[in-house]
Amino acid sequence: MSESSSKFYDLVQAAVKNVNPYVAGKPIDELKREYKISYVSKMASNENPLGSSLKVATALNNFASNMSRYPDGSGHNLREKLASFLSVEMNQITLGNGSNELLELVARVFAGPGDEIMYSQYGFAVYPISAQIVGATAVEVAAKDFGHDLPAMLAAITPNTKIIYVANPNNPTGTLFRRDEWEAFISQVPEDVIVVLDEAYLEYAEHACNDGSYPNGVDYFREYPNLLISRTFSKAYGLASLRIGYMLGCEEIIGYINRLRMPFSVSAYAQVAAMTALSDPQFVTKTLRTNDQGMMQIRAAVEAKGLEVIPSYANFITIKFGENALEIYDKLLHEGVIVRPLANYDMSDYLRVSIGNNHENNHFMGALNKVL
Amino acid sequence: MSESSSKFYDLVQAAVKNVNPYVAGKPIDELKREYKISYVSKMASNENPLGSSLKVATALNNFASNMSRYPDGSGHNLREKLASFLSVEMNQITLGNGSNELLELVARVFAGPGDEIMYSQYGFAVYPISAQIVGATAVEVAAKDFGHDLPAMLAAITPNTKIIYVANPNNPTGTLFRRDEWEAFISQVPEDVIVVLDEAYLEYAEHACNDGSYPNGVDYFREYPNLLISRTFSKAYGLASLRIGYMLGCEEIIGYINRLRMPFSVSAYAQVAAMTALSDPQFVTKTLRTNDQGMMQIRAAVEAKGLEVIPSYANFITIKFGENALEIYDKLLHEGVIVRPLANYDMSDYLRVSIGNNHENNHFMGALNKVL
Repeated sequence: MSESSSKFYDLVQAAVKNVNPYVAGKPIDELKREYKISYVSKMASNENPLGSSLKVATALNNFASNMSRYPDGSGHNLREKLASFLSVEMNQITLGNGSNELLELVARVFAGPGDEIMYSQYGFAVYPISAQIVGATAVEVAAKDFGHDLPAMLAAITPNTKIIYVANPNNPTGTLFRRDEWEAFISQVPEDVIVVLDEAYLEYAEHACNDGSYPNGVDYFREYPNLLISRTFSKAYGLASLRIGYMLGCEEIIGYINRLRMPFSVSAYAQVAAMTALSDPQFVTKTLRTNDQGMMQIRAAVEAKGLEVIPSYANFITIKFGENALEIYDKLLHEGVIVRPLANYDMSDYLRVSIGNNHENNHFMGALNKVL
Repeated sequence: MSESSSKFYDLVQAAVKNVNPYVAGKPIDELKREYKISYVSKMASNENPLGSSLKVATALNNFASNMSRYPDGSGHNLREKLASFLSVEMNQITLGNGSNELLELVARVFAGPGDEIMYSQYGFAVYPISAQIVGATAVEVAAKDFGHDLPAMLAAITPNTKIIYVANPNNPTGTLFRRDEWEAFISQVPEDVIVVLDEAYLEYAEHACNDGSYPNGVDYFREYPNLLISRTFSKAYGLASLRIGYMLGCEEIIGYINRLRMPFSVSAYAQVAAMTALSDPQFVTKTLRTNDQGMMQIRAAVEAKGLEVIPSYANFITIKFGENALEIYDKLLHEGVIVRPLANYDMSDYLRVSIGNNHENNHFMGALNKVL
């Protein structure tokens, strides 16, 4: 709609006018609808290709008799379980509608017009959106080898810096920073700057490192009360449909976030699913093993075609296709394979491919053979 | 936490400091935990005492294989179904995490510090919260017979008025305004003031009126593009656990709301549940019949004890207990019955009782006999 034809544009808050909404991976139904394709592999949203623990489906089915009851807004049972799982206190945890809600809430609690919110080039799209929705100034720091340049981020801190978002591993590039780099960074951030460490892909990275060099945020947030950690059940636990994540931090900041969050943003189904998923570590183990195999398989196939990849510590791999990337994306769609274009990340030469199950990986590789 | 002991208080946005978070009905688990009671009737949150359509449980169970997939952020299939159900356009509908999210989003799109957000005395707690989270000035207009005084609200409009929230029926009082009062109001609101008509209890009211005098918002929003209508699947459809509501409005305003809302705030489970619930109108009919019976039963029993009630067009009834109300609330808790104290609505002499199923109604009436 053009601004001149709009009745209400002048009434809209300035920040809202500048929001560039999130662009999601193409849903399977939409591809089927638009392209009249019946068999689709979605490798666009870093979802768990094994689904989720079968115990969760059973638990949800048993929960159906409570469907008409509001959720426990405090998430007591799940926070109790998480506190024990992570060896933290219950009041150091809050739940969110995916980590997305929590990332936005931090911005809404701590930043407004005139404040700066910092993140890395090639950082997750929700970080700039979080700056936009509160009208803060987004400060993007140039990446180094597609990952965070933490010393450059430290150097970019100004008296107006309120929040720094960092992701480890990073999405959409799959890069990682290690314990030594992290410690040099967090120990030098002023204590009145909030650092949000986004660990959405934690499980994959800890497994892939396998040498203790992954800096798990739980080991740091007590020493640095300005450090918040966000995590999700959408990836290794396979609960993306249900929308649940959590945040760890000092009691005071968690209290501010709770003050602003909607009372029931996390459904009772999501809470039950997460409780159950935590009780099935075997499913996560199987997920990581499947990811290892798929990552090797896809990376080898892609490199055999002379394509470059960004080495990844997560459940996706980002591949350089050059200036034809969007054309290849579209051709893959016609083959029933959805991957993720990265033009909105200023990486228009690249496509991000989520590691699938064996079937999906073969579908992708077969389609790629046809398309190239 | 006292302000002096806090490290981060000075960093928190001013609006956040003034938020008084929503106080939810006591969860069943919490009462069981604290009072060591095993048999509990929760009549505190206006939930559906019949649960939900059995078709929904089946549909969700069948959906479990999609658990690891992100929801369709646009809610295409559900909006298509709602558009047909309501005879409106798909782009006049957006979905929310309960109507709560939508009520807050309207405030975030249209209001900020210096703006006024108006609502009635005894209005739903989320309206003042929506003003608080954006730092707007809350303007509460005195009620008339516990319901909206629409002429007084019209008269209270100033050049700073950005949003007016009205609920029909009203929660927590159950009062109603009729078609003639509504038309006199909406036709005189300036077109640059957004009116949000909250129809969370619509189904109960249309049924209770039964004479065509209920002003259904769908009949008005085309004529008044500044009118938004919010609805929920939490009440008559019995899906409170899943968090889903929707908003109707002109395409332009729905577009602004979509720009600010999180892409995945409505879970895929909630979307499937709502689609299925819309296909089972018999369940809603049974819900309304059960509510009629329970309302008569409880109202008669309470009035027989000489207690006053506020006549209600919804699925709850608000009873005057006088200065002992909170004591009676607590005694009912010990009997395993959770009702809702209304002190935070400035109605500390009253308790709100959700109409239950036959079993719950008897539990309440038996407990009341003991307690009084």
